[in-house]
Amino acid sequence: MRRVSALVAAAALAACATPPLRGTGDLGVVIERSAGRVQVVDTTARVSLATVGGLGDLSHASVVYSRDGRYAYVFGRDGGLTKVDLLLRRIDRRVIQAGNSIGGAISQDGRVIAAQNYAPGGVKLFDAGTLELLADLRATPGPTGAPSKVVGLADAPGGRFVASLFDADEIWVIDASTPRAPRVDRHPRVGRNPYDGLVTPDGRWYIAGLFGEDGLALLDLWHPERGVARILDGYGKGDPALPVYKMPHLRGWAIANGHAYLPAIGRNEVLIVDTRTWREVGRVAVAGQPVFVIARPDGRQVWVNFAFPDNAKVQVIDTESMRVARTIEPGRAVLHLEFTPRGEAVWISARDDHRVVVYDTATLQQVAALAADNPSGIFFTARAARIGF
Amino acid sequence: MRRVSALVAAAALAACATPPLRGTGDLGVVIERSAGRVQVVDTTARVSLATVGGLGDLSHASVVYSRDGRYAYVFGRDGGLTKVDLLLRRIDRRVIQAGNSIGGAISQDGRVIAAQNYAPGGVKLFDAGTLELLADLRATPGPTGAPSKVVGLADAPGGRFVASLFDADEIWVIDASTPRAPRVDRHPRVGRNPYDGLVTPDGRWYIAGLFGEDGLALLDLWHPERGVARILDGYGKGDPALPVYKMPHLRGWAIANGHAYLPAIGRNEVLIVDTRTWREVGRVAVAGQPVFVIARPDGRQVWVNFAFPDNAKVQVIDTESMRVARTIEPGRAVLHLEFTPRGEAVWISARDDHRVVVYDTATLQQVAALAADNPSGIFFTARAARIGF
Repeated sequence: MRRVSALVAAAALAACATPPLRGTGDLGVVIERSAGRVQVVDTTARVSLATVGGLGDLSHASVVYSRDGRYAYVFGRDGGLTKVDLLLRRIDRRVIQAGNSIGGAISQDGRVIAAQNYAPGGVKLFDAGTLELLADLRATPGPTGAPSKVVGLADAPGGRFVASLFDADEIWVIDASTPRAPRVDRHPRVGRNPYDGLVTPDGRWYIAGLFGEDGLALLDLWHPERGVARILDGYGKGDPALPVYKMPHLRGWAIANGHAYLPAIGRNEVLIVDTRTWREVGRVAVAGQPVFVIARPDGRQVWVNFAFPDNAKVQVIDTESMRVARTIEPGRAVLHLEFTPRGEAVWISARDDHRVVVYDTATLQQVAALAADNPSGIFFTARAARIGF
Repeated sequence: MRRVSALVAAAALAACATPPLRGTGDLGVVIERSAGRVQVVDTTARVSLATVGGLGDLSHASVVYSRDGRYAYVFGRDGGLTKVDLLLRRIDRRVIQAGNSIGGAISQDGRVIAAQNYAPGGVKLFDAGTLELLADLRATPGPTGAPSKVVGLADAPGGRFVASLFDADEIWVIDASTPRAPRVDRHPRVGRNPYDGLVTPDGRWYIAGLFGEDGLALLDLWHPERGVARILDGYGKGDPALPVYKMPHLRGWAIANGHAYLPAIGRNEVLIVDTRTWREVGRVAVAGQPVFVIARPDGRQVWVNFAFPDNAKVQVIDTESMRVARTIEPGRAVLHLEFTPRGEAVWISARDDHRVVVYDTATLQQVAALAADNPSGIFFTARAARIGF
């Protein structure tokens, strides 16, 4: 009998080897860019729960979440699309869906994943559950005749995706409500080489940065029939005060309290733009060329990181005074930063110091640090509930 | 051997009788107000997962969520505070913390629950994990000498709570960062009988409605030292065009795209207010006296329900034209409505038809209905990530 009891107990334990129940609202992932891994992190306990490997080339990676917060969809540079189960801490599914890709998005209702691809240039739509390919949209050719690289893909209300075509100078609005037969609204001649784009938090405006000329392209998603407008004519490389090491990520914009905060190009400045008029209303001098400019959720602060050689610093701008309130040094090669959903803390990756540092945003004091192998992007599950993420 | 295998299998199954793993980001609760129960619902599948009873008097009930989205804290009219586990679908903990209470809040970091009480009048702070009482703040007495009823409690950035004292005409800003020894900043003489309050989505402004006079009290939480101001002087019962059956919930305000949409008092109108100036900029004529005025997350629509005798209707206002775009009849006695996080659907309770109806917000068509016993409030877990909820 004792042997039977032992067998029974062992089987019970083995069958219940799943992790204990937990919520998903306070989870996130940290990209370990060199090792092709992600860490699953808990922002309440401020610890790493697990490391999941086998995600390929994550030298450029981005993440969106399933609407239940359980799965992270990781887009890798090599065209890998990996669905990671945060509760089981393992890969659920993985496909190599292109030769070269820099990211993707999830639809408003959570049913469709879209990937933006460089090679072949285009957009692919996948079932969010199974990663089955639903549609393969080849991009308009660029000057070489090859399909254009696609950039700046984001979801928008009404089951749509919006993206820019770098080589073909177009913006696409894709109606994916019937994902096997998506409808594409093409907006041609938006400006030279749109290189990134974002959807504003209210889901109304799509803004694309232009690599080939100054200014930005603006599309009103409530009235796409009105076409693409040009805003901020002076924004760009037109005045090369400083060499431009890298064009800033538009996802590096902060939109808060009626203003947009964006990295100046080739200048050590953050621009402040009124989002009712899209006119510049101020500038903040900062410590280097800004890369990411991210608002604390309540909009009281905007945090900025910088391109090499100033990439060991982070600055905190007070949005009321429009001045830098503090300079912080979290570590070497700060690549990204992410606020907890209600904004009490911010997590910052320091790639060359192999750590992620957590700051209290009220006291600006460090409250935790986690070891990580060449950490880059940090993405929390609260993004599941936000338009354009 | 066969009997051993059967024993082993049975034990394994029994030991793993916990519900399967799932995310919490797409869950919610529906209050069944007469039966003292809540339904746990899944907004992806659009089904009810379980019913949890034993929550006492839920004739007036409100809910906040733990930051991981796993637990719903339900505040009941009888002073009950119940922590409901959405994954195990059962009560985790429950206390009777007052004689009469209408709600509460959770702190920015998720560690502290605050309850606003009528009897005894005051605010109590609890540990969010254990529901241990941490602090008991007795309210300033009103004219009768009894501690004032506390209303309009919400969380604010910086680990604070803000509340109004109905009988004492005060607004309190409570620093709960040391929850066993909270510090209270009292703002006296804010206006006659503040009866409800809200914190704007950016966490900056606290607005309290006044029952005893026209106008609203406004406090800048970035500069509480500047004191309480009065806005919208004409807002109130001063012009009794219609009998006022109930004062509108301030939580029934919509703040979107630089405008606040609020129920007029005693009029069949929704007011539109510019949140930069706090001046009225328009009105929308609607089908009855509005109770809740709630914006779709992207701000393109505002949905309105009404007091008796117009409480079988819901209207959809297009925020661009500032006109009613559609009138819907979900059922009798519509008490509340809640949008899914990215806004593709809205859930509406129809108490007297014992159902919750789900609408697609793009097509305005009904897409699902769930049976519910006298349903009232509907609350989704995405609130866990939002300031003031």
